Amino acid sequence: MISETKIAHFDSLRLDSGFELAPVQVAYETWGELNASRSNAILVVHAFSGDAHAAGISAETGQTGWWDNMIGPGKAFDTDKYFVICSNVLGGCRGTTGPSSINPATGAPWAMNFPVITIADMVRLQHMLIESLGIRRLLAISGGSMGGMQVLEWAVSFPDAVACAIPIATTARHSAQQIAFNEVGRQAIMADLDWLDGNYYGRTRPARGLAVARMVGHITYMSDDSMREKFGRRMRGRDEFGFDFSAEFEVESYLRYRGSQFVDRFDANSYLYITKAMDYFDLSLGRTLAAALQPATARFLVISFTSDWLYPSYQSLEIVRALRTLNRDVAYCELPSNYGHDAFLVDVAEQTDMVRGFLASTYREAAA
Amino acid sequence: MISETKIAHFDSLRLDSGFELAPVQVAYETWGELNASRSNAILVVHAFSGDAHAAGISAETGQTGWWDNMIGPGKAFDTDKYFVICSNVLGGCRGTTGPSSINPATGAPWAMNFPVITIADMVRLQHMLIESLGIRRLLAISGGSMGGMQVLEWAVSFPDAVACAIPIATTARHSAQQIAFNEVGRQAIMADLDWLDGNYYGRTRPARGLAVARMVGHITYMSDDSMREKFGRRMRGRDEFGFDFSAEFEVESYLRYRGSQFVDRFDANSYLYITKAMDYFDLSLGRTLAAALQPATARFLVISFTSDWLYPSYQSLEIVRALRTLNRDVAYCELPSNYGHDAFLVDVAEQTDMVRGFLASTYREAAA
Repeated sequence: MISETKIAHFDSLRLDSGFELAPVQVAYETWGELNASRSNAILVVHAFSGDAHAAGISAETGQTGWWDNMIGPGKAFDTDKYFVICSNVLGGCRGTTGPSSINPATGAPWAMNFPVITIADMVRLQHMLIESLGIRRLLAISGGSMGGMQVLEWAVSFPDAVACAIPIATTARHSAQQIAFNEVGRQAIMADLDWLDGNYYGRTRPARGLAVARMVGHITYMSDDSMREKFGRRMRGRDEFGFDFSAEFEVESYLRYRGSQFVDRFDANSYLYITKAMDYFDLSLGRTLAAALQPATARFLVISFTSDWLYPSYQSLEIVRALRTLNRDVAYCELPSNYGHDAFLVDVAEQTDMVRGFLASTYREAAA
Repeated sequence: MISETKIAHFDSLRLDSGFELAPVQVAYETWGELNASRSNAILVVHAFSGDAHAAGISAETGQTGWWDNMIGPGKAFDTDKYFVICSNVLGGCRGTTGPSSINPATGAPWAMNFPVITIADMVRLQHMLIESLGIRRLLAISGGSMGGMQVLEWAVSFPDAVACAIPIATTARHSAQQIAFNEVGRQAIMADLDWLDGNYYGRTRPARGLAVARMVGHITYMSDDSMREKFGRRMRGRDEFGFDFSAEFEVESYLRYRGSQFVDRFDANSYLYITKAMDYFDLSLGRTLAAALQPATARFLVISFTSDWLYPSYQSLEIVRALRTLNRDVAYCELPSNYGHDAFLVDVAEQTDMVRGFLASTYREAAA
């Protein structure tokens, strides 16, 4: 399944900050076929470091999509039945307008003059994309982590445009600990002398700071258990301590590798803007969560994972309780997994069954 | 209670790496009086960023000791009854020989030519200090976190010199996750261009990298709960988002403050060496933990805290199970606390009662 990235262009986007961002482009990919009644469209929304390439083999890079085990013929998001769309988020660095894009007023990259964005801004741009594709109502919207925040925002901001919502391993508001981990990543980037207040385009990139930020992220995506299983105290190619500061333990080597690998595909300023959007995310904003969710009319399937300590199950349960207070149609499942937060990407057997059944029943009801 | 730092000098110390470190000095403080039979001495050992100033008001800095709520007249380590000693660890930067000390061969700081050290090296130096004070057998040795590792090492390396051992919030071996968090801190320091391969003495210090490392540490020392209680999503002096990258949330401000504060009192190279010693720590080293603990004859009181996710209770339980296998005298308690790993420093009411009773019964038995 070869997949090509397409670009949609829009004149402007009004942001929560009041800023009018113009012009705006969105990179997106699609799989499957939109049916005649345009009732089988599913929007998949990506997590922090994801992009539009959710499934299949990229025509540009040859890479497999980040949710390829969930999207495709016969998979949870069955492309034989559904038309699946995924777009790179606003603020990103994989085709959609972000801080590395050219500011038409200066002819140079926006860098830190890019406006601070929110999850709701991302969602409004996705809504413009969906409408431009001739889709008035999505059969489903689904995503994990930051993707789940977008799912919740969609359900509240565009209730008529969502038949069902599947937020996974997510929260209705970023906690102090979640903000703290993001802040450490931002500080690591800003501490890099090559960051140059964001004006590193065309120069040396702040690779060391961005790599450190990514290493912190990777620890939070795994669980204590999964790190023990994957690495334990195993050393690289030797049994004895070297009494030096090389990467002796496999876990050290892994983190350094993942950090350096990330630098090749991600923009440091996008790291700052997207983590900030996550930290700003608070669906309730002084109201009760139930009051905030009041506009949502979609059916909900909420999924969390036992070993996910970054987005713990209690945060999903807050969403579920609020929806039940409102007497909304909501199913919840905490799936057993050792993979920590990464579970929504890698440990998908039960997730697949739940999503498949939920989509099928929603599709039947919508057709009825 | 004014407390002064003293310095003990030793000709040399043979390290686990085979390196002969010479000369070596140790900074230490004491509280209370050694009795005539020299049977009331307690060695308190500090955690990663601690120092010899465990109690009272420092004559040099005016600061209160890091375990002042546990050490003093009538406190858990009752200085009316016991003679309490605390020394800065080998590799430290608070008076004991470490990478910022002068290498006599060059007349310049050791920097990264300082030998890589281990927890056992730290303990051997402490043993030399204790013997130089005329003490053959400690009534007790106690400490939390990295201090607890030293406690375990003492009990195994010098069984005749320890009547009772109180390891708190610690582990018999650093896990992959614990190594990973330390590695991120090291990489943050080494990523700082001011680090200069460790040769920053007399120049600009790698303050930004060290601050980032410390921020990561602080998150791991707290719990999700304690961060919610302490910060939540509260913003600094305003109610609305600023749509910029200033420290808007109180948790961001707190981390930045603690990071910058740490830079004033800690040496970046000591950070590298001491975290490395922790990562190397593995009491079992291929044997079962029970086999490794076989030489230990001390009575044990093992304490952990419910919300400590950095040194979770299961790691303390591994120690307890191994000691019970050996039919050793061991008491274990998991204390309820919301403070995470910091609990051993701040949430000390129950800890005080347990330690007081355990010391008193050990003292009675030793005198009998």
